[in-house]
Amino acid sequence: MSEVFSSEVFLAYSTYSTVVLLKMLLMGPLTGYFRVTRKVFVNPEDARAHGDKDEETSKKYLRIDPDVERVRRCHQNDLENIVPFVGIGLLYALSGPDLSTAVMHFRIFAASRIFHSIAYLVPLPQPSRGLSWIVGMGVTFSMVYRVLKAGVHL
Amino acid sequence: MSEVFSSEVFLAYSTYSTVVLLKMLLMGPLTGYFRVTRKVFVNPEDARAHGDKDEETSKKYLRIDPDVERVRRCHQNDLENIVPFVGIGLLYALSGPDLSTAVMHFRIFAASRIFHSIAYLVPLPQPSRGLSWIVGMGVTFSMVYRVLKAGVHL
Amino acid sequence: MSEVFSSEVFLAYSTYSTVVLLKMLLMGPLTGYFRVTRKVFVNPEDARAHGDKDEETSKKYLRIDPDVERVRRCHQNDLENIVPFVGIGLLYALSGPDLSTAVMHFRIFAASRIFHSIAYLVPLPQPSRGLSWIVGMGVTFSMVYRVLKAGVHL
Repeated sequence: MSEVFSSEVFLAYSTYSTVVLLKMLLMGPLTGYFRVTRKVFVNPEDARAHGDKDEETSKKYLRIDPDVERVRRCHQNDLENIVPFVGIGLLYALSGPDLSTAVMHFRIFAASRIFHSIAYLVPLPQPSRGLSWIVGMGVTFSMVYRVLKAGVHL
Repeated sequence: MSEVFSSEVFLAYSTYSTVVLLKMLLMGPLTGYFRVTRKVFVNPEDARAHGDKDEETSKKYLRIDPDVERVRRCHQNDLENIVPFVGIGLLYALSGPDLSTAVMHFRIFAASRIFHSIAYLVPLPQPSRGLSWIVGMGVTFSMVYRVLKAGVHL
Repeated sequence: MSEVFSSEVFLAYSTYSTVVLLKMLLMGPLTGYFRVTRKVFVNPEDARAHGDKDEETSKKYLRIDPDVERVRRCHQNDLENIVPFVGIGLLYALSGPDLSTAVMHFRIFAASRIFHSIAYLVPLPQPSRGLSWIVGMGVTFSMVYRVLKAGVHL
């Protein structure tokens, strides 16, 4: 096993990155589940496969559903927030932070993003979703600060 | 050269990540190609530059084309699936897998995503696209399992 | 601190990746700012929280605004281009490039993407946005070439 995996900070980064990327990935099957069960498609070949084999009548399943769109927006927000966390988090984990500080960053981020998805999908009244989004972004900004403080080469 | 590049597993990760990221990147120029050749734009400044210099008549090129939308959905699906592969694959490559097992994971993923794009863009009848999407996701889930099995710090 | 952070090339990668990821992240709050100040929402719970507490009258804020859509397209273009840069750039930084060559790659990429956002949001007439997009993509392609030249395991 690589030496980097013997560092507790890197192990924590590995664990929490994997958890949040897995959470993000699961939005894909969730979108698919809603599309198939509600017969709401965007591709004609999907409408034929899961809606109606007849080409003409299958066209009525090429439509937009508010719940499918909601899952897609939640997925998009994950892409916009979880992907930067994974990139900046790697640099942060390698920049030599305290283990307890690093784990606190990762825990708060993961919790905020899991709560964000719940708030988006239920949906919970605002500002629950907005606040969880801000908390996650705050964690990433804090890691940005510590990465740049650890060393800069312009 | 960094020590990590002397590991065969890391070299395989480097090769296949680069291939799938390159494949994803090429969807951008492909979208641009369709937009310019079909004169289908979303930004007024693009319609003027590539459609018609006259501001009023250029507005007719601000429209939606099903093939452009198809390329964009294919690109979006790549973002949703290839980016998590690259993140989790790095952790997997550093977690000390067998070279042959790792290469098998990377090969299946890359093949499934290249086939997915072909199935999306031709388009091939379902379930070809759906199956290739599931295969790629299965590879990523398998890597998630092995990363978490290699070590967890909560 | 991790040994990798003592490498000047890695430090440059860390600096520039953080800068471009931060730039990408800021598109989120910018979208939020336009949505709240212009009262343009996509989620009913947002229209109630920031538009009008009354459920019926808040529906008029569920609408599309061209400037909000412009920020969102700029954000999406960042996801499509900055995320591959961060992934391929890591491999490039680890592949042992000259410091001056690497820094030149990172500087050109960061400058092209910052200019791209300005060109998108002002907006500047084409081909300013198109050229900055091509320059950024050219840097990433150059890094792809060097990563694959440094070593391949298929």
